Amino acid sequence: MTRTLNESEAWEVLRRGKVGQLACIDQGEPYVVPINYLVDESCVYSHSLPGRKISAMRLHPRACLQVSQIQDDFHWQSAIAFGSFEEITGEAARTLILRKLLDHFPRLTPVESQLVRDAEPVPVIAFRLRIDRISGVAEE
Amino acid sequence: MTRTLNESEAWEVLRRGKVGQLACIDQGEPYVVPINYLVDESCVYSHSLPGRKISAMRLHPRACLQVSQIQDDFHWQSAIAFGSFEEITGEAARTLILRKLLDHFPRLTPVESQLVRDAEPVPVIAFRLRIDRISGVAEE
Repeated sequence: MTRTLNESEAWEVLRRGKVGQLACIDQGEPYVVPINYLVDESCVYSHSLPGRKISAMRLHPRACLQVSQIQDDFHWQSAIAFGSFEEITGEAARTLILRKLLDHFPRLTPVESQLVRDAEPVPVIAFRLRIDRISGVAEE
Repeated sequence: MTRTLNESEAWEVLRRGKVGQLACIDQGEPYVVPINYLVDESCVYSHSLPGRKISAMRLHPRACLQVSQIQDDFHWQSAIAFGSFEEITGEAARTLILRKLLDHFPRLTPVESQLVRDAEPVPVIAFRLRIDRISGVAEE
C-alpha cells in the first residue's frame, strides 16, 4: 500500500541514501544526472568537476533531488527534495567538505580523488543544496 | 575508465532500461521522478495518473530522461535523453500503449492496473517523449 511520508520520514530516506538524481534547469531545459551526496542538517552536499550541471545551477540555482530506496517491487521509499544551489568557495570549508565526501565515496572520480588526496589546487567544485521543501512516498 | 558513448550505444542503454528518472519543469522549478518506460523507435512511452508531472509537461513539454545500468562501481552505463512530451489522446492508440505498458509492468500501480484490465474509462494518461538528443557515458 502506497502512503505519503511525513517530512521527518522523507528526511530519513534522504539521509539513508548515497546516490540521488539531481535535476536542474539548463538553458530552459530540464537536465537530470545522478550524484553522490551527504546530508548535514538541512543541506545536501556534493561535488563536481566543472561542467553542465554546475554552469546550469550557477545561472538558475533551483534544484530538485530524488532519492529511492528499493527493497523490492512491494517495498520501497522515495523522497523528493527541493532547494537552492550554493557553491562552497571558502577554501577551508571547501576542503573540509571535499574530504568528508572523499571519506564516504573513496572513488569520487579517479581524477578528483587523486587531486584531493594530493591537496592539489584542483577544479573540483563543492556545493550544497539548501533544502526548503521535501516530500516522500513509500510502499510497505 | 570512463568513456563517452556514441548515439547508438546510448540508445541501447535506454532500450535495455525499464526505470528512468524523468525531469521536467514545474512552475519554473526542476522536478524529477522515477518512471517506468518502454522505447519504440525514437520515442519513450510511459503512463501516469493525473498529477504534478503531467500538469507540468502539458505547460512546458521539454523533458529529460536519465537511465543507469549499474553492474558495480567500476562497470556502469548511463544515458541521458532529451525530448518533448506528447500526450496520446486517440482512444485506440492510448489503449494499445497502456496494454503494452501493462504487459511489461504488470503492476503499473495497483489502481491503474485494475482499471486498465477492466477496460474502465480511467484517467490514466499515456504519453510519449519524442527524443531528439541523446548522450551517454560508461565505465568499463
